[in-house]
Amino acid sequence: MKALLLVAHGSRAAAANDEIARLAERVGAGADGEFGAVVPAFLEMVEPNVHQGIERCVELGADSIVVVPYFLAAGRHVTRDIPAEIECARAGHPGVSIEIGGYVGASDAMPGLVLASARAAG
Amino acid sequence: MKALLLVAHGSRAAAANDEIARLAERVGAGADGEFGAVVPAFLEMVEPNVHQGIERCVELGADSIVVVPYFLAAGRHVTRDIPAEIECARAGHPGVSIEIGGYVGASDAMPGLVLASARAAG
Repeated sequence: MKALLLVAHGSRAAAANDEIARLAERVGAGADGEFGAVVPAFLEMVEPNVHQGIERCVELGADSIVVVPYFLAAGRHVTRDIPAEIECARAGHPGVSIEIGGYVGASDAMPGLVLASARAAG
Repeated sequence: MKALLLVAHGSRAAAANDEIARLAERVGAGADGEFGAVVPAFLEMVEPNVHQGIERCVELGADSIVVVPYFLAAGRHVTRDIPAEIECARAGHPGVSIEIGGYVGASDAMPGLVLASARAAG
């Protein structure tokens, strides 16, 4: 089974963390069976952390995990912290393929999403 | 003329701010004439700030400005800081319509964007 781990920063505001959990549910609903589980995780302040998120995916039966950093820019969280966490997770799960996808800000779909947000307002 | 002001947080990392400028260019290239200008602005640390971004839109001939908050969650920047800046801008430009669009994390297109990022990796 292939799982998607959505890694967000984590916030002191519970509502912001709830948004991530809801987004993960919506991604799962739209995945059309391609991802057997979509699990949220947080880099800081909030659980599940990345380690716990990976464990959750494995418990659910994942033998392949794709990590999507829910970040807008390639700051140190994207370039250093998430890769370090994933390197550690790979060492702990040698039988599981764990890949890191592009962070959402780098998506080719982002310009269109910004335009759609502007059109909805204008 | 209608302008789009893309408001990001602003980072100490120059590369992250450059990403916003490039994104604004890509949004403009895809706007197909609907927005006569797409201008980046930053809430903290970096110029142009929101005030300067609004001034730039007006200088370019905008009589209508749509502000898109480039944020993933509805934290205080989205719920308080940007509305306060825009309230001030409206007072300074009574002849210009200034509307705030949804922040990008709230977009209906975000679940699909996350899935596409995961597919590209997997």
